[in-house]
Formats: sequence, C-alpha cells, structure tokens
Amino acid sequence: MGWPLGGVGFGGDYNPEQWAEEVWAEDVALMQQARVSMVSVGIFSWAEVERRPGAFDFGWFDRVMDMLAEGGVKACLATMTASPPPWLARLHPETLPIKADGTRMWPGARQAYCPSSPIYREYAGRLVEQVASRYHDHPALALWHINNEYGCHTRACYCDVSAKAFQDWLRDKYSTIDELNRAWSTKFWSQRYDAFEEILPPRSAPTFANPTQQLDFARFSSDALKGLLTMERDIIRRHSDIPVTTNHVPLAKTLDLFAWGKEVDVVSYDSYPDPFDKQAHILAGLSYDVIRSSRQGQPWILMEQAPSAVNWRHNNGIKQPGQMRLWSWQAIAHGADAVLYFQWRQSKGGAEKFHSAMVPHAGPDSRVFREVAALGEELQQYSDILGTQPDNDVALVLDWDNWWALELDSHPSNELTQMDALLAHYTPLFEANIGVDVVPPDADLSKYKLVVVPNLYLTKDPENLTRYVHNGGHLLMSFFSGIVNGDDQVYLGGYPAPFREMLGLSIPEFHPIDHDEPVEILGEPATASLWLDEIVLEGAEGDVLTQNAYGQGKAWYLGTRLDANGMRRVMDHITGQAGVRPVLSGLPEGVQAARRGDWLFLLNHNTYEVEIRRPE
Amino acid sequence: MGWPLGGVGFGGDYNPEQWAEEVWAEDVALMQQARVSMVSVGIFSWAEVERRPGAFDFGWFDRVMDMLAEGGVKACLATMTASPPPWLARLHPETLPIKADGTRMWPGARQAYCPSSPIYREYAGRLVEQVASRYHDHPALALWHINNEYGCHTRACYCDVSAKAFQDWLRDKYSTIDELNRAWSTKFWSQRYDAFEEILPPRSAPTFANPTQQLDFARFSSDALKGLLTMERDIIRRHSDIPVTTNHVPLAKTLDLFAWGKEVDVVSYDSYPDPFDKQAHILAGLSYDVIRSSRQGQPWILMEQAPSAVNWRHNNGIKQPGQMRLWSWQAIAHGADAVLYFQWRQSKGGAEKFHSAMVPHAGPDSRVFREVAALGEELQQYSDILGTQPDNDVALVLDWDNWWALELDSHPSNELTQMDALLAHYTPLFEANIGVDVVPPDADLSKYKLVVVPNLYLTKDPENLTRYVHNGGHLLMSFFSGIVNGDDQVYLGGYPAPFREMLGLSIPEFHPIDHDEPVEILGEPATASLWLDEIVLEGAEGDVLTQNAYGQGKAWYLGTRLDANGMRRVMDHITGQAGVRPVLSGLPEGVQAARRGDWLFLLNHNTYEVEIRRPE
Amino acid sequence: MGWPLGGVGFGGDYNPEQWAEEVWAEDVALMQQARVSMVSVGIFSWAEVERRPGAFDFGWFDRVMDMLAEGGVKACLATMTASPPPWLARLHPETLPIKADGTRMWPGARQAYCPSSPIYREYAGRLVEQVASRYHDHPALALWHINNEYGCHTRACYCDVSAKAFQDWLRDKYSTIDELNRAWSTKFWSQRYDAFEEILPPRSAPTFANPTQQLDFARFSSDALKGLLTMERDIIRRHSDIPVTTNHVPLAKTLDLFAWGKEVDVVSYDSYPDPFDKQAHILAGLSYDVIRSSRQGQPWILMEQAPSAVNWRHNNGIKQPGQMRLWSWQAIAHGADAVLYFQWRQSKGGAEKFHSAMVPHAGPDSRVFREVAALGEELQQYSDILGTQPDNDVALVLDWDNWWALELDSHPSNELTQMDALLAHYTPLFEANIGVDVVPPDADLSKYKLVVVPNLYLTKDPENLTRYVHNGGHLLMSFFSGIVNGDDQVYLGGYPAPFREMLGLSIPEFHPIDHDEPVEILGEPATASLWLDEIVLEGAEGDVLTQNAYGQGKAWYLGTRLDANGMRRVMDHITGQAGVRPVLSGLPEGVQAARRGDWLFLLNHNTYEVEIRRPE
Repeated sequence: MGWPLGGVGFGGDYNPEQWAEEVWAEDVALMQQARVSMVSVGIFSWAEVERRPGAFDFGWFDRVMDMLAEGGVKACLATMTASPPPWLARLHPETLPIKADGTRMWPGARQAYCPSSPIYREYAGRLVEQVASRYHDHPALALWHINNEYGCHTRACYCDVSAKAFQDWLRDKYSTIDELNRAWSTKFWSQRYDAFEEILPPRSAPTFANPTQQLDFARFSSDALKGLLTMERDIIRRHSDIPVTTNHVPLAKTLDLFAWGKEVDVVSYDSYPDPFDKQAHILAGLSYDVIRSSRQGQPWILMEQAPSAVNWRHNNGIKQPGQMRLWSWQAIAHGADAVLYFQWRQSKGGAEKFHSAMVPHAGPDSRVFREVAALGEELQQYSDILGTQPDNDVALVLDWDNWWALELDSHPSNELTQMDALLAHYTPLFEANIGVDVVPPDADLSKYKLVVVPNLYLTKDPENLTRYVHNGGHLLMSFFSGIVNGDDQVYLGGYPAPFREMLGLSIPEFHPIDHDEPVEILGEPATASLWLDEIVLEGAEGDVLTQNAYGQGKAWYLGTRLDANGMRRVMDHITGQAGVRPVLSGLPEGVQAARRGDWLFLLNHNTYEVEIRRPE
Repeated sequence: MGWPLGGVGFGGDYNPEQWAEEVWAEDVALMQQARVSMVSVGIFSWAEVERRPGAFDFGWFDRVMDMLAEGGVKACLATMTASPPPWLARLHPETLPIKADGTRMWPGARQAYCPSSPIYREYAGRLVEQVASRYHDHPALALWHINNEYGCHTRACYCDVSAKAFQDWLRDKYSTIDELNRAWSTKFWSQRYDAFEEILPPRSAPTFANPTQQLDFARFSSDALKGLLTMERDIIRRHSDIPVTTNHVPLAKTLDLFAWGKEVDVVSYDSYPDPFDKQAHILAGLSYDVIRSSRQGQPWILMEQAPSAVNWRHNNGIKQPGQMRLWSWQAIAHGADAVLYFQWRQSKGGAEKFHSAMVPHAGPDSRVFREVAALGEELQQYSDILGTQPDNDVALVLDWDNWWALELDSHPSNELTQMDALLAHYTPLFEANIGVDVVPPDADLSKYKLVVVPNLYLTKDPENLTRYVHNGGHLLMSFFSGIVNGDDQVYLGGYPAPFREMLGLSIPEFHPIDHDEPVEILGEPATASLWLDEIVLEGAEGDVLTQNAYGQGKAWYLGTRLDANGMRRVMDHITGQAGVRPVLSGLPEGVQAARRGDWLFLLNHNTYEVEIRRPE
Repeated sequence: MGWPLGGVGFGGDYNPEQWAEEVWAEDVALMQQARVSMVSVGIFSWAEVERRPGAFDFGWFDRVMDMLAEGGVKACLATMTASPPPWLARLHPETLPIKADGTRMWPGARQAYCPSSPIYREYAGRLVEQVASRYHDHPALALWHINNEYGCHTRACYCDVSAKAFQDWLRDKYSTIDELNRAWSTKFWSQRYDAFEEILPPRSAPTFANPTQQLDFARFSSDALKGLLTMERDIIRRHSDIPVTTNHVPLAKTLDLFAWGKEVDVVSYDSYPDPFDKQAHILAGLSYDVIRSSRQGQPWILMEQAPSAVNWRHNNGIKQPGQMRLWSWQAIAHGADAVLYFQWRQSKGGAEKFHSAMVPHAGPDSRVFREVAALGEELQQYSDILGTQPDNDVALVLDWDNWWALELDSHPSNELTQMDALLAHYTPLFEANIGVDVVPPDADLSKYKLVVVPNLYLTKDPENLTRYVHNGGHLLMSFFSGIVNGDDQVYLGGYPAPFREMLGLSIPEFHPIDHDEPVEILGEPATASLWLDEIVLEGAEGDVLTQNAYGQGKAWYLGTRLDANGMRRVMDHITGQAGVRPVLSGLPEGVQAARRGDWLFLLNHNTYEVEIRRPE
C-alpha cells in the first residue's frame, strides 16, 4: 500500500453522533485549525445506523463523510462492528460471552459478544457489507478501520458455542484424538479424551487445568478473534483496495501480534503510558518496537493516545505541559507515521466523559487544545520522515506462545512474568540508546549483532537460535529458557536440553528464591531476585553469568534476574563484546536518542532542561 | 404524631420465641428492674406465626403482647416481614435475590428476598394485614416497626423480575425511549435502546457499564425498597393511627434517607460505633445529624445499639465501662428521644449469639446488665429533654444522588468517596463544638450562616446554592463539585460551570495526585492529598483555598483535601468569617459540647477525667 | 493386619501409563537400584482402563503388575477412582461438583465429582469391583490404595444432589424436623423449617448463614467423602483380606481424621513441608503426631513426599542436600514404617511436570536420584524399628467439630484459627523434645500426665476433661474453650460454664484485642495478642495464667495467646509441675530428639553441624 495521507497523519477518533449536527461545522473548522488530516469515524455507530435488525439508515453518516470530504479531512472509516446494539443480546442472548466461572457478560458497556458466535459474525458481516459497499469510493475514505481494540475487554469466551469452535480448532490442529491426547499428556490425571466432542474450554475446575489445554485455548482465543478480523477484511476486499488496519490495545498477552500483523496492510497501536509512572516512556518504547516489528519495521499508526489524562485507571494523572508532544515524537522516533488521539471532542456523558480529548469540555480555549494544534502545525514540516525505518543491531526475542506458557500455573514460580522479563532486558538497552527490534524466535536473525532471549521457557524451534550463534552470532539467554516444546512438554536430558551444547552448561534443578540474594557480576556486587540457578559448567566459563564459544559465535547465560544496575552492567558488557553501538553516546541521563533513516531524534524525558552538544 | 412514651424511650429488641415461656416472666421482671419502657417485638417472627403458607397462628404472640401490657412495657410492634420463612423460597425460588454476576442469594441467613418480587410483596402484605388487624388496638401497642433494616444485606437485585421493575421505573421517569437515550448518552459505545424492554440492570459486563444506567439503578433500588415500606405503611394506615417507623442501618449508600424520612412518622437509626476506632464518636455524631435532619430536626429513635460488643466485624472489641452510657447520651445530645438496644436477652444459638445483649449469657448479675439498668434509671430523670431540638447555624450538604454518582467507576480518581469527604469536612466542625445539620442541596438554606459543600460532583440544582450566597450566605465548596447534572452529563464551558461565577474561578483539568503534596494554607504549611486543582482565578483571591465575594455573600473554594490540621484551620477561618459560634469554647480536647433547647450536654470522649468550669 | 513389607517401606507413586513400555524395564532396574520395595500404581488409570463406559481393558495394567512381581517390587494398588474420565462428565454433567456460589467445577483437572453423586458412586463402584476381582490374588499386591487424597480439591458440593443427600443425613441425625429446629436455633431470624425437604446446603446468602447449618454441613461433607471410602472398602473386602489404606493430604479442616482412621487398616499421609519455611519441620511433626494418633499410635505410611521441590505453591523452593533424608527420618521418628514419594519418574507433560520425582527429568545421574537411592539403601538396615511406637505423656486435644465451629463467621474474632492454636501450643513442647499425642476430647486420657486444650470453643463432652483432672490429671486450657455444645449453642451461666468449677474462675465477656499488649507471665514480661480475657477468680490463683486445684488434679487457664517465648515459659512451667520429662534435655537448639520403643532419634534441623554427647 502507499501511505494514504500527504504528511504525517494527525487526528483522532471522531464520534459526531454524540453531538447535534450544528456542532459538526465547528468541529471541521477546529480540525482545520489543528491541521487534522484524518479522523476515525463510525467506531461505535452500529446502534445508530441499524436501530432495528436489518433497518439500516446511513443518512446521517453520509452527511458526516461528505462534510469531512468537503473540509479536506480524510476518514479512517470503521466497520462499526465494535459494539453490538442491545437488540442483538435481546434477540440472541447466546451471543453474550461467558467467563471461565460461568458468569455471563451482559450488554450495557461494550464488546459484549462471543468471538466464536456465528450469529454475531452474521450480523457483523452484514453490516460490513453495507458499509463497504456504500463508502468504498467515497472521496473522504483513506483507510479501513476494522472493528476496534479486539480483545480489549472480551479476551476469551467459555460458552458452549466457544467450546464447539474450540473442538473444531483442535480437530484442525491435531486431526486425531490420539494425537491430541499425546500432545496434552492426558495419560496423567486420567484425562484421556475419547472424542473431540468431550473437550471443553478450561473452565473453573477443582485444581490446575491441563496446561496444554490452557495453552491451546489461549492460541484458539487469539485465532478466534483473528477470524473476525479476516472475515471483515475479506468482505472489504471484495469492494475496495484501500488499505485496512485494526488498532491494538497496549501490549498485552491476549493477541499474538506477530500473527495478526500479517493480516492487515498497516498496523495500528493505541498507546496509553501512565503519567504517574516515571518509567512509562520505556514501556512505551518497548511497545512501539513490538508493533513496528510485527510488520517487519514498516511505518505504523499511533491510532490512539490521550491528549492528557485517561479515566480508566484507578487514579488518573494528567500529562504535564509538553509531555504529550514529547510522547508523540517518541512514537514517531520509533517508526510511527501518524499520531492520532482518542477522541476529538470530549464526551458530555457516558463511560469516557473523563477521558481527555483534543477539544476538552472547556472548549478550544484551553491548554490541551492549544498543545494539540501546535503539534499539528509542527508535524506539517516533517513529511520527509514518512516511510523511513529504524535499522537496529539488536533483536529481543518475544513469542506469544511462550507468554501464554510461561505464565501458566503449576510452575516452579508464579512470580516470573513475560512483561517483567521483557522490561528487565529492554530497559538497559533503551537507557544505553541502543535501538531494538522485537522478533519471534523463528525470525531470520542473520542481520543482528546480538540476540537477547529473556526466559524463553517454551521453545518451539531451538535450532533457529543455535544456528544463529553457530554462524557467528552473539546471544544472551536468561534462566528458564528452552524447557518445553510447543506442546508444553519438557525437553528431557538435563535443562536446558536443546541449548546445553550452545551454552556449555546444564542446570540440575529449577531454583526459585524467596528473598533477594547478593551476587557478584563482572567483578561488582549486584542483587539477584526471583531465581538463582545452580549452574553446572560443561565448557562455559563464569558462574551466575556464563559465556561459551559455540561455532563462530558466543552465547551468554544469565541464571538469575538482577537489579537494574546489574542488568545494565551485563548488557553493557555483552553489547560491547558484540560490537553493538548506541545511536549516540555520552548523553545526559533521561535523554533518548533514536534514528529513522537519516533522522536523529533526541528526546528529553526529564522534567528539566538539558544541554547537548551537536553530535559530529 | 405525639411521642408515644411517657419519658425517654428505653428498651430493646425482644425476641421471646427463642426462649421457653417460663423465661418470659423473668424477662418482664428484669425489664421493670431496668426501667424498660418499650421493646421491639416480632421482627423475626414470620416463620413462627405462619409455619405453612396461610396457616397463621398468633396464639403465642398474643401471650407476649398481653404479658407486656400487664408488665407496663410498650410494644414497638414489627410487621414481621424482615425475613421470609424457608417455605417461601421453596415454593417460589424466583423471590430470591440475584447479584450482578448472577449469583443467587439463598435462604439460611436473613433478608433473602428480591425487593421487586410481586410474590414477596403479596405474602408480606398478607402478613401485615394479619398483624395490623389483630393488634391495632392492643393496649401494649405504642409504635409500628415496619420490616427491619431495609437493604442491610440485600441492597439491590439483578434478576429478571427486577429487570422488569427497573424498566417500569424507567418508563415512569422518562416516558419515551428517546428521552432515556438522551439522558443516558447511549449514542456513545453503540448503546442505543430501541425499547424499554431491552434494558437490563447493570449486570456484570465486559467493562464499565453506562454510568447513568448505574446511577438510575441505584435510584431504582432505593425506590424499590421504599415501595415495600409504603406498601406496608398503607396497609397499617387502614387499621391504625399509631405512628410508624422503620429502623435504618448505619449511614450507608444504599437508601436515600432524605426521601425515606418523608414516608414515616418518626425516623429510627441503628448505631454501631466500633470500640476499636478512636474516632468512632465523630462518625456517630455525623450519622445522628443525618438521621435527625432526614426529618427536619424532629426527635428520632436510637432503635438499636450494642450494650457492649458486636459480632459481625472481623474482630470485635467490647465497650469499656461507661462507654455505653456515654454513647447513649451522645445520641440524646444529637436529638434522640429514645435509646434502645439489640437485643434484650443474648441468644443461645444462631448467628447473633455473640452480639452482646442487655441480659448477657451470664445473666443479670453482670457488668453489662448493671450498666444498662443504671442508665434506664438515670434516664427517668430527664423527660424534659423530650421534644427539644438542636438549633444549628451550619449546614453540611449531602445528596444520595451525588453519593451514587461520585463513586461510579471511570472517574478521574476512584479514591474519592462520599464518606471520606463528609468526615473530612464534618470532623473539624465537630471538634470545634459547632452544631451541624446535614441537608440535601435543594433544602431551604436561608437560616444558615454557613453552608459546607464537600465534593458535590453531581449537582441537580446549582441555583439553590448560588442564590443562597447571592442573598448573603457564606459557603465553602470543595473540588470536583458542580461537574455533572442529574443525568451525569457534564456541564460544559469550563469546570465548575454552574459555580464559576459564584466562586470567581475556573478549573482547566481535573488533577488527582498520587502522592502527598506540601502546600501552604492561610500562612501555615499543610499536606494536600487525593487531588490538587490548578485554579484559574476569575475574580477570586487565593490559591489552594480561594475566596470570592458574590452578591451579598461570600464563597470559598478548596481545591484539595487537606490533612486534619489543615482542614481544621480552613474551617476555623471560615466559621469565624461567617460569624458561626461554637456551643462552648475553651473545652479540653476530646470533650464534646452540644445543645438541645435549653439543655447543654458535655460529653467526655477521653479515657481520662477532665475538669471543666461551669460556663457563664 | 500384619505389615505387608519385609522392611521399612520405600518407594513412590508409579504412573507408567505416561511412558512407553520400553521405559518400564529401566524403571524396574532403577527401582531395584534404589531398593524400592513398594510402589503405588493405578491412581490415575481410570481413563486408560475404561476408555468408554463399560469397555474395560486391563491388558496393559496386567503387564505392569506382572513386571513388578517379577522385579520383586510390591504394589500398593489404587482403586483407580480418583479422577473420572471426561466421558463421565459428558454423559452425566450432574456428577460435577458445584461451589457455594453456584460455580460448576468442570473436568480438565482432577477430582471433578460430587461426593454425593449416586452416578459417580455407581461408576466408581463398578470399577473397584473390576480391579478387586482381577487383582485380589496377584503376587505383587501388598496393599489396597483407595482413591487418592479425598477432599484435596473438592471438599464439599452444594448442588441439588448434595442438598438431597444432606437432607437424608440430617433426617438420620435428628429424626424430626422439630429436633433440627431446636438444634439449629431456627427461631432466630425466622429460619424455622417445616420439612427436611426445605433445607439446603449453606449456599451464598445475603449474610451469615445459620452457624449450626454450616457446622452440620461440614460434618456431612466429611461423612459424604467417608461414604465413598467405605463403599470402596466394602467391595474390596468381598474379594480380599489384604489391608486397605487411603492417603490424606496435609493436615486440613476438611476431613475428621479421627473418624476416618477407624475405617482403614493402616493410615497414610502425604507430607509436603515448605522448604522456604524455617519452621516447616514443627508443622510436619504435629501432622505426623495427628496421623499416628488417628489410629492410636499404630505405625503409619508416609505415602507421599517430594524428593525435592513441589510445583503447586506460588513459589517453590528445592530441598537442600540432605534435607529430604532428614525429613524422611523425622517421619519415621514420629511413627512411620514406610517412606514413599510422589512420584517415581518426573512427568514430561501435564500439571505436575515441575513436581520433583525420584527419577528427575535429567535422569538417574542426578543429585536427587542419588539421595533417594542412598536413603533406600540406608533404610534396609533398620527393619527393627518396624512396629515400635512412641509412648508419650502429653496429649494435645484436637476435635474436627471444634475446628469447623471455631472458624465459623459471626464470632468475637475471626483471627482465631485452629491451626494457629494447635501450633502455638505444640511448638514449645516440640522444641522441648517432649513427645505428644494428639487426641480427640473424648479419648481415654488416663495415661497422660498432662492434657493441653487449646481454644476448645465447641465442647461436646466436658465431663471427660473435668473427670480427668478430678482423678489427678494436669490440664492446661486456653481462652475461648467450653463455650458451646455440639449444636453450637452457648453453655449459659457465665463462661466457660462447664469448666468454671474445674478452673476456679469465670469470664464475664469475650475480649479480643486489636493490638499487642505487654503482660507479665510467671514473673517475666511477655506479649499478648489476639485476645486478653478479663478473668474473675473463683478459687483459682493468678491473672493472665491461672491455676486451680480440682479433685486430685490441677487445671491451668491461659486467657490470651502469648508470643513464642511466653508460650514456652508457660509450657516449661506446667510440664515441670506435671512431671513430664523430655526425651532428652540439654540438646542444642534446633536438634530434635524422639523415641520409638528402644530407638532414640536425634535430628539436626539446623543448617550447620552440632556436637552432641552420647546420653547416659
């Protein structure tokens, strides 16, 4: 696809149905004032365009689209399926999702549909057909916005309809029930299934449900939602070549973004760093690197961010003056070609009325609108950034299969989480201004100088990593990696069996700890927590951190989680050994440097000014 | 109504069905010894007078009533509907209440009925008809005690029967579905209803349910229970002119007491200060001021208090010697004309056997009985207090609509609660011995020298407050007031739009904080927490605390919650400016002074003695 | 029964269905190497021997049994009923258990059956019939292992089938509904039942369910599971005289072990001390004393322990080198004649793959297997220990009826728990190396020099205790004892009415405290927590700790819970007075001494070595 907009995309979610039509004209005038180039429309319009089943009325929406076209604002047009109207639940209560404990999720909020419901799919598909056929050649149309934040609230459904869909998914995967029984290790605890029809989602049970059942259900749930995406996309494709996207909620376990990225033309991300969190920009940076990497570095869309505060945390801080501009530029530095907000005009009522908006309750004469408009103006000058991409030497390995498996119950420790593991390894790289791609473990790694593998408990294809090192790569792997295969079955023969040779060591037993433990790392003291492997050297050197020459390359193993300084020391050492260079060195603490093509971005995340000499 | 008893009412809940009839004679003798003038009878007698549907047997209860009459003890006669017998649930399981997540509440405890159940209403109504027709002219009868602690356990029901009743309530309120859609802002999140029949209680949902749906459901639930009260009252009225009351649980969100107070002849309150809580008497004082104000200052009944410990907290302390007397007198000082206990004789079995009683397990030869009897004797001397009322200069504004709305989800901060807000503003007035009425925001305020408005987020009728100031009143308003109207829709145009002129300021954004912040208030340091408004002065003076002349009056605004000393300093300053005088000044800390008519009450809440000079 | 094995039993759970048959031969060879004498087989084999209802196939299991016989390893043969196959739930969903809040427990884990289900009983019974008739004279058979860890996950069921069974149980107990109404005190809160058919399990209710209903439901639930045990045992008995056992989970509230011990030939216990808990060996010691006492001191089987880490806690530590040996010998010192593990070979998949096993994932060349085999070897030398029993002078009173009642809601304090109470009184005895039996309150106490009665709230038969003292016994009783009878009804007349005379005191009110309080005990300062009785002396001497001569004996009363030092001081004093002697005195801290017959065990629980002189 070509980029649909003339410059850096700028705008937000526009929900005009909330306002009388006389407000719309003021909206367009203010959009022009703020240099808005694109707005997302129709996201929550289902109940207004189809007030009764099959009774479609797009008249008011035609007027919105025409008005945008006349005003020179492009439409990122939603398929309107994000939240079914109450009549669907009344006609078909079996479309409502059900939790593992049997609790039904009722209408009155949003996203109250079972992802596997054929009835929801039928009604949603009919609506998409209407929208796509009606607007596919509308002059305002720039981008198709499929649904909205899939899996944000309804991540999985455990109802009987979902059980049937899960059985079908398992039949596709395993072909025979014997093969499923083997993969799921059902000979233990007398769990053997005699037929796919006996299998249920992992509903509330007396104790730990079968781990592979849980793992497959997580895979199925991501796929069930993905099936909704492709169903809508395929309908659109029959009418239109305009690019499609769908916007993802902040980095979460629910959806395998690497699989989802393949199904759209451009990836979109909703970013809500917490202003009360002093490290929020690091998590944001990681998230942006993930979303960009989910389409191999192509530019992506920051589809939603808050102009100031959100309203859905327990306690919601505002963005300080300048902070919204800083965080917007950070997204661009990490590869975004568009910056949009939720939402254009702040709601007067409803569940998001205290979520900040580009036009606040106080109107345009306000700090928030002024900062928004100033950013819109500023971004006009930087169209040359569009399409450029970061070129990074370091890959951080992330796998949703591992995420789901790592956080299963009945493990040596339940304190080990994927997000903590990612952040512990990403933060020292970020702080050293080293650009990072986030890749699945089966990615082509040959371009990278260093591959970082945090706690890759489930490893489907260990050879891809060992081959990379053998061919000359540098790799850091942390504890509790290479333990199970894709069926969550242990690789026998001493942990971590598939990596013992590459790492030159073995681990006799898992060794979670219940306290912090002082250790020495690279000659200096540090603090170990969570876990502290007893390492048996089989060729490697070192103790808590080991290194091993393997083929043309080198593999490090870190048998614990260190405090921030310790992790930083380890990463400094290994990036140095691997010949990885920062974007810029010698910067004051809190200043981020990033590159896209020829562009160098310098971002001061401190609350005070700093002075920086122009790099040579 | 006239006061039904000769002196200060004294007694307790009497549940003789728990004991063999031979114990009853001892009961009456001990009542006489303790100078008991009235007991509540029949509260849990349903299952004993109607052992099978329609098979009434009041013989044993006749004997109780006759015995009381002969013993000179009046009966506060319950309608017996508080806890339906198990047979009702077996015959009609649809009368059982259901929680938001679908969990049914079963029999085996008490209050297991859906407030909207027509079947429960039918059976309860038939029983009340029996009780009222049988005892309306019994010589023991002094007062009708309708049901018991409405909404104590079953605050709301989410079943299909309640859904239907909720729909009817909404139809009455809004007439058309379009008007409901407007009020509920259903154009957001695709929530438009096409018919009232589509609407449900706010059951478990994928995320935040519509706020106005939640708010209306809270209103409906208070009204549904109130409908039970008036149903019973109207049956009684056909038989009897004896006053009716219903007893309320400690100050809670469930029932709009200002609305309930209009439906009875005298209001009753159950007070259970926690002996482990050093500030319990302040919360008690606030509660008493609320219940008294719910009937415009008329004398009220302390229907229940514990002679010593309760049994329903996690850990239950006893009342120290003298503490029960002190807290009883405190209720009288705040306007009570009767002091009663739960219960007369301590249960041998069942769920309240470890709740203290006037006659403990050990029998009358016990500290508890001796203190009870001594108080009964003492109160004989003070009949002159009866009917007198406090006359206060300060009004504290409380609105159940605001309570429900303030604590909704999806807000700037969920740490802001109505009870904390009330106590933060009430405590410095209490400690300064300034009497307080607690009034709804639409009350006639003209008699007050100062009106205190803590966090009145939802403001239905802002003019009543602005008019009061304009006409010369003094008013203190705290942050997050005047934000939404009765539909929970924001007043646009800069916060707090309806009060900007009165206060001479505006607030650009809500500003919750996640830490304590030092501020300066009236020249001294203080600590701000929860929230810290950025205030734009538009005529007012000050910073965290502002003041503004408006019409003949003056309005203060406090943009934060201060620590106790800070709140005290603010309140001292403003009461001084408003010409409000304490009941008595110069008292030692911990000594409360209160007035009813000519009576001055001095209550030492310390654990040590103090010396006080007779006031001039 | 005679002991079925030649020496100290040694082995573990063997689940060969998890592995290909070629692994089995290696298993037997390794078992011989580790001196394994017995393995538990068939525990989770149901789904493999009955793949479809009624289609039995024991061929593979015959091969397992034959192979064991040939290898000289005995079988502790399970009845295979622990975990029904998925087809049972599909055919009969009504066999699935339901929680108090209505949540159904689904298959996918284990133990998903309603204990009262006649359908589960029918299918389980048919299977036991098959197993018993097929293997009753198999040469490998040494012991019948009924089911597995009854009540481990499914402790009670609240479904309609269970309701019916509960009604039947109540009808058996009370004969008439009037007698039940009396026992349950249903005249309070209008709970009178008109028929047994109206009664339900204590499902979710608006507030505290009737306490005696809760208590009887706990009794019923223990009995319902016990009914499964005896059903299976009786089937086996028709085929075999080989002893039967069932293995119990770590000391828990669910099952009345004193009642269960009567139904088997030998008791078995699964012990999982937490390696992260420095006091784990004390809790283990208490548990072993309970299980041994549940069959009057007869030798018992340590049916399961972990060779190293478990996997079901939140965070699971490994056993340090030597710790498994130490804790195994501790079980023997407390009366075990067999030491077995869960499980033989560590699972490759499923929910327990991270539970350590005798043969770990790494194989036999591992610390864990080496320690296991060394212990197996060592135990060969100590067959003379078999059959010996400890002979203790101190009895600690435990009653499941009290456990259930003590921890009911609506109590003076909910911070008082049975396990804390037991440990607070047991620990100082353990640390002083004084052997303890744990007995029900109706046991024959005449052989003991001292009886310790911690918080025996519910006392069914006070005379057994008073008679013991009267006849010359020494007894220590703690607060909140002797309060209610078996119906959870208060003994009237001043607490603790049935023991006032024996103790020479009374307690006016219960006195929980919300803070730690300094007190003086036996002339030294100590810290009181939880509770602090105000004691009225009626013949006794002392204050917080009192003593009273009664008949030929002496009774102490401790009105509080002291810190560890305080409890130790009290216990030292009283054991001294009672003439109780430690097994050995003058040992270093952390060294346990215990006796069985002529055998003296010295166990060093410290992480360092100590030197001990040979006792004279």
